[in-house]
Amino acid sequence: MTTFHDPARFPRGFRCASRNVGLKPEAKDLTVFVSEVEASAAAVFTRNHFPGAPIVLGRETIRGGRLKAIVANSKVSNVATGARGVENARRMAAAAAHALGTSPDRVLVSSTGVIGVQLPVERIERGIVGIADDLQDDPLVGAEGIMTTDTHPKALSASVGDATITWVAKGSGMIEPNMATMLSYIFTDAALEAATLDRLLRTAVARSFNMLSVDTDTSTSDTCAILANGLAGPVNEAAFLEVLVAGCIRMTEILGRDGEGAEHLLRVRVRGAKDDGEARRIAKSVLNSPLVKTMVHGADPNVGRLLMAVGKCFECTVRPEATDAWINGYQVVRGGERLAFDDDVVRRTLKAEVVDLEIALGVGEAEATAYGCDLTKGYIDENAAYYSS
Amino acid sequence: MTTFHDPARFPRGFRCASRNVGLKPEAKDLTVFVSEVEASAAAVFTRNHFPGAPIVLGRETIRGGRLKAIVANSKVSNVATGARGVENARRMAAAAAHALGTSPDRVLVSSTGVIGVQLPVERIERGIVGIADDLQDDPLVGAEGIMTTDTHPKALSASVGDATITWVAKGSGMIEPNMATMLSYIFTDAALEAATLDRLLRTAVARSFNMLSVDTDTSTSDTCAILANGLAGPVNEAAFLEVLVAGCIRMTEILGRDGEGAEHLLRVRVRGAKDDGEARRIAKSVLNSPLVKTMVHGADPNVGRLLMAVGKCFECTVRPEATDAWINGYQVVRGGERLAFDDDVVRRTLKAEVVDLEIALGVGEAEATAYGCDLTKGYIDENAAYYSS
Repeated sequence: MTTFHDPARFPRGFRCASRNVGLKPEAKDLTVFVSEVEASAAAVFTRNHFPGAPIVLGRETIRGGRLKAIVANSKVSNVATGARGVENARRMAAAAAHALGTSPDRVLVSSTGVIGVQLPVERIERGIVGIADDLQDDPLVGAEGIMTTDTHPKALSASVGDATITWVAKGSGMIEPNMATMLSYIFTDAALEAATLDRLLRTAVARSFNMLSVDTDTSTSDTCAILANGLAGPVNEAAFLEVLVAGCIRMTEILGRDGEGAEHLLRVRVRGAKDDGEARRIAKSVLNSPLVKTMVHGADPNVGRLLMAVGKCFECTVRPEATDAWINGYQVVRGGERLAFDDDVVRRTLKAEVVDLEIALGVGEAEATAYGCDLTKGYIDENAAYYSS
Repeated sequence: MTTFHDPARFPRGFRCASRNVGLKPEAKDLTVFVSEVEASAAAVFTRNHFPGAPIVLGRETIRGGRLKAIVANSKVSNVATGARGVENARRMAAAAAHALGTSPDRVLVSSTGVIGVQLPVERIERGIVGIADDLQDDPLVGAEGIMTTDTHPKALSASVGDATITWVAKGSGMIEPNMATMLSYIFTDAALEAATLDRLLRTAVARSFNMLSVDTDTSTSDTCAILANGLAGPVNEAAFLEVLVAGCIRMTEILGRDGEGAEHLLRVRVRGAKDDGEARRIAKSVLNSPLVKTMVHGADPNVGRLLMAVGKCFECTVRPEATDAWINGYQVVRGGERLAFDDDVVRRTLKAEVVDLEIALGVGEAEATAYGCDLTKGYIDENAAYYSS
C-alpha cells in the first residue's frame, strides 16, 4: 500500500514556477518544471491523427532520452495550426531554454486549450524572461499554470526507498487518452535510464491513464512524461514500479473525479474475462455508457443498463447465464438476471462520492479496471460554450 | 425523390389497435398490427449479448418467413428475465393469436421499457381480449401504444407503383442499433417473398437505422420487421428498394430528431474514406463525440472538435493535410487547419433544427452518413431517474 505525502513535494533537484503571460486575462497560463541536473526521460503521447504541434516536436525531443525542463501553457493548444504551429512550439522551447539556462532539445513543450488558434508565442517569449527567479518547491504552483476546466491543481508524491516520485497533472474534458492523459508529468530523483523509464512508464500508463475516460474524446495534446534526475541514486526497480503504478492510478482517480461536471468518481472492474483486451473493452463500455453514467448521477440502481453496456460489446465473449454484477458491493445481478435486492439500500450507496461497479463474466481469468465519472448538466454547461467563453 | 403521404396510411389489408392494459397508469401500453391475410416477413434484431425474451422468441418465429400480426407492449422490456421471461413472451404471442384469430407462430412479439422486471403477462392476457373490435386504419394509433420516452408517435407511408409501404417506429434513448432500431415495423401490400424481403431489409437497414445513434447505447430489444401481404401484387424490385431505403432514412432522421432531450437532428457525412467501414466508423465517431454534440447544442463553431473526433479513429487512414470540413455548407477546415471563417454566420446556421457536418478525407472514394442528435440537459434529466419514475 503506497502512502502519499501530505502535502505533495518534489524529489531532490526539481522545482517549478508559473505565471500569467497574457494568454488568459488574469489566471496563470504558463508553467515551467526544471531539474537542477539533466534527467533521463521518457514520454508517451496522444494517438490522435491530428496531434498538436507540441506533440510533433515532443516526439522528436524525447528521442534523446534526456530532459532538463518542461514548459507548458494553457488557453491555446497549438493544434491544427500547420507549419507555423510547429515553428511556434520550437520558439517556445528556445525561450524556455534561454530563460532556464539549457538547450532547446532538453525542453519538452506542452500546450493545452482551444484547438485551431495560433499560439501568441511573442507573449510567451516576453513573459518567460526571468522566470528562473520564481522557481519554488511546491508542485501545486506548477500544476496551477496548466489548468483549463480543472476545478483544482493536482499533485501527488510518494517515497520509494530513499527516492521520491512526484506526479503533476491536469485534465478534465476531451479525455479518453489512448497513450496518456491530457498533461501528466512525473518527476523522480531515482537513478534510472531512459529505456528503463520508458518501459516502466508504459506499464504504469496501461493500467492507469489509458483506463481513464471522462467523455470518450481523445485529446490532440495528451502527454505523459517522466523525468529521473538520479540525485537519490539507484532504487529497487520492482519497488519503484509498484509506487509508480499506485501513483498513476491515484492520479487517474483524481482526474476522473474532477472530470467536467463530475459529481462522482466511477470505477468499473471487470473480472473473469476471456483476455486482457476483452476485460478492458467491457470495462470501458460500461464506464462510457451515457445511460450508466446518468444512472450513477441519478443514484438510480437501474441494473439493466449494466447488462446492456456489457452486452453491446458484440465482439467479446459474454455468457448471460454466467454474468454477475455488483453495485458498491451489493450483488444486483446473478446469472444474467436481476436479483431482488433492497432498492433503497443500493440507492443510498450510489450517493457516495466513489461508485464501484463490478462485473464478473465467468468466462476466463482476465480482469481490468476503468476510471471515469458520472454525466451531469455541468458537462453540458461547460461544453456548450467553451470556445466562445 | 420519394414523396411521403400526409397523413401516413396503411397498405391494403393492414390495420392496428392500441390500448391501456394496466402496464402504465393511463397511457396506451399495448399495440397490435394485423394483416387480413398472412404476409411474407423478414426481421433483424439487436446484436446485444443480453437479448430480451421477445428477441429470443422472435428469432424462432421469423424463421418461418410468415407473419399475420405483431403485438408489442411498452413499459416493461422483458429483458434479463430468464426462462420465465421467454415463457411470458410465448404467452403474449398466444394471447394475441387467440384475440386475432391466428396461430402463435404467426405473431411477432416485442416489448420495450425497463430491463430486469418480469412482464405482468396476466394483464396483457386480460387486456387484449376483444382487441380485434378496435382495429383501425390509422398507423399512428399503433405507434402510440409503443412509445416510451418518445415525444410523438411516428409513422410514414409512400407509394411504389400500385403498392404502399408504411413505417411505424419508436425509439428515443438507448439507441445505437447494430442490426435495427429500437422497434421499427414496415408494412407493404407488395408481393415479395420472405427471402427477398430479408435481403432488401438488410440493405436498407445498413444505410439507415444502423447509422443512427442517440447515445451509443445498444438496446437489448432492437427489432426491425417487414411484412408484405401481397394484396397489391408484384412490384418492380429496384423501385421498391429505392422507396424502402428513402423511408428508412427518413424514419431514422425522425428518430434522431426525437432522441432523448434532442433539440437538433445531427447528420454527419464522411466522404473520401478508404473504404465503407472506415467511412462509417469516422462518421459515427464524429456523431457520437460528446464534445461535438455539445458544440451543436451550444451552436458554437468549435471546429477543433471535429478534427479531434476524426483523429481519434486510430485504426482508420487519416491524412491531416488532406482533411477538409464543412458546417452547414460553410467550409471551416482546409488541409487539416482551421480556416478563417465568419464565426457569427456559422454560429447562426448552427441554430437551425437540422445541422449537417461534412468531412472530406481525401484518402479514397468511400462515403457514409450517420444520424443522431445534440446532447442536452434534457438527456440528463430523462436518464438520471428513468427507472424510479
